[in-house]
Amino acid sequence: MKKILCGVDIGGTKLSTSLIRLDGGVIDKCIDCDHVDKPEKQLVEQITANINRLLRNNEYQESDLQGIGIGCAGHIRFRDGVIITTSNLKGYKDYPLRDAVQENFSIPVILDNDANAQAFGEFKFGAGKGFDSMVFLTISTGIGAGIIINNRLYRGSTGTAGEFGHTIVNPDSDLTCTCGNRGCLMSCACGMALPYLFEQKIRAGKTTLLDLPEGFDYSSIDGHMLKKGLDMNDPVSKEIILDSGYYVGIGIYNIFQALNPPLIVLGGGLLSWGDFYLAQIKRTFHELARDMIFDPFEIAVSRIGPDVGVIGAASLALELC
Amino acid sequence: MKKILCGVDIGGTKLSTSLIRLDGGVIDKCIDCDHVDKPEKQLVEQITANINRLLRNNEYQESDLQGIGIGCAGHIRFRDGVIITTSNLKGYKDYPLRDAVQENFSIPVILDNDANAQAFGEFKFGAGKGFDSMVFLTISTGIGAGIIINNRLYRGSTGTAGEFGHTIVNPDSDLTCTCGNRGCLMSCACGMALPYLFEQKIRAGKTTLLDLPEGFDYSSIDGHMLKKGLDMNDPVSKEIILDSGYYVGIGIYNIFQALNPPLIVLGGGLLSWGDFYLAQIKRTFHELARDMIFDPFEIAVSRIGPDVGVIGAASLALELC
Repeated sequence: MKKILCGVDIGGTKLSTSLIRLDGGVIDKCIDCDHVDKPEKQLVEQITANINRLLRNNEYQESDLQGIGIGCAGHIRFRDGVIITTSNLKGYKDYPLRDAVQENFSIPVILDNDANAQAFGEFKFGAGKGFDSMVFLTISTGIGAGIIINNRLYRGSTGTAGEFGHTIVNPDSDLTCTCGNRGCLMSCACGMALPYLFEQKIRAGKTTLLDLPEGFDYSSIDGHMLKKGLDMNDPVSKEIILDSGYYVGIGIYNIFQALNPPLIVLGGGLLSWGDFYLAQIKRTFHELARDMIFDPFEIAVSRIGPDVGVIGAASLALELC
Repeated sequence: MKKILCGVDIGGTKLSTSLIRLDGGVIDKCIDCDHVDKPEKQLVEQITANINRLLRNNEYQESDLQGIGIGCAGHIRFRDGVIITTSNLKGYKDYPLRDAVQENFSIPVILDNDANAQAFGEFKFGAGKGFDSMVFLTISTGIGAGIIINNRLYRGSTGTAGEFGHTIVNPDSDLTCTCGNRGCLMSCACGMALPYLFEQKIRAGKTTLLDLPEGFDYSSIDGHMLKKGLDMNDPVSKEIILDSGYYVGIGIYNIFQALNPPLIVLGGGLLSWGDFYLAQIKRTFHELARDMIFDPFEIAVSRIGPDVGVIGAASLALELC
């Protein structure tokens, strides 16, 4: 009987490594902020050293680990354990990270997209407990998702399934995503879109209660600022939050029609907008779905807190069981 | 070793019943056009009588059947074998058709959505041969779809998964679907939308080469008329076909991002528009997907002909194997 899990979350600013109990609790973790510019081999060494140090500090052996799960944003070819492309690490392309880390350990190493990892974490330890299928949608700077069908992640042929953020929800939109397309869910609804949406409203003559200095750089508008605006009843902030909620509601409706899951779990930074946001998401969904819901269907909020990245990554090792 | 299959396709105008070989070939079939207004029990009797007559006429016994598959448009709760709603049969609501037919036979009876049935038929006998996963999209009066994952239909919690026709692709559209929503794929791209699209172009001052009498009723515009228009190089017909192909291309791109399947198969009446239509679908898809295709991905056309309804229904019995 293996006792613990290890999760590694390769973020755009933080590299988080953590030991996790089989019930999803965090035993210990370490966070580095100097990984982004490192060449591939140095990153592998850093991950390896982090894991070994955490094991040592907490008096565990490698053999106490059931597996090491690594989550990374971007396109991951799951079956080969390869990072095809990622915006989180500079210059990485078609890099076989899984096998490179595996060389330093004798227990299984799993590499997957970070949204898939978070989805599986939420499924095992969070809002998905008790379900056998669900879809997880994380709404943050970008929009990621993971699909769980019959207790397993559904990844598709490359491993890039669940990219609902890139599905087109308004081809006439003038909002462009980092992928280059206009009108995908990500371009319309996530953190990335906020500066543009804010500037657009101001240019249209709307007045914000937020205290913006002369010559303010709209690119610094983010979810936190709009949360502040929401709390002070700023009409511009509220309109943007409603717009985002509207498109996420459409996204959820589209997932409902496509996959008919019993549960969709929402996570990510923009959920800090709270009930005002969630109510708009649910309202939009129900206005579209109306009488087409024939069995219990739930829209829930992530129950795993800010450690979802490492907990999710660690949970990947449980899929092997 | 069972020798043959039976497929029943409950259409909006035709009730087709057929004996099918295990290789998908049609042994014999009968078509009725008087089923739509019949009460539930009479429909069950009609289906039963058709199957027994076909068996008798072709010198088979019931025990020669591996199973009876029934395909019906609408919302089907697969696990219970219940027609929740269907526009093809008047007044049917929450009717347990599967069990009602099952009472008359000792071999398994399976009831599923007609698009699921067609998808599985295409998977077993058509363009899906050799794949283990695919999505089938049928573009006709409406748009239906079926998802196959690891050699089985994926149905979701009710059994209504794959309703890509109802996913919203343009919320600003003024085209309304029978479901009541505006801007779903079905409202923008399928046969149902053609009269509206045609009238819109004419009202906008475009000139058609089609010979339309004074006071022409646009509601009679259908795929056949536009095919005629395409063949005579009518600019209005061509524009509408391009518009439909554009939205189907978006729909396929969305399916690609959501499910990352190795294959999407297109079927349905509007495919008779041929290469002009298919090229627009593929062009739109590739303009969106660009460098996000990392493994072989194919857009293919249905290889099963007009008998796809009964062949698909019959193929449902093979999923049990």
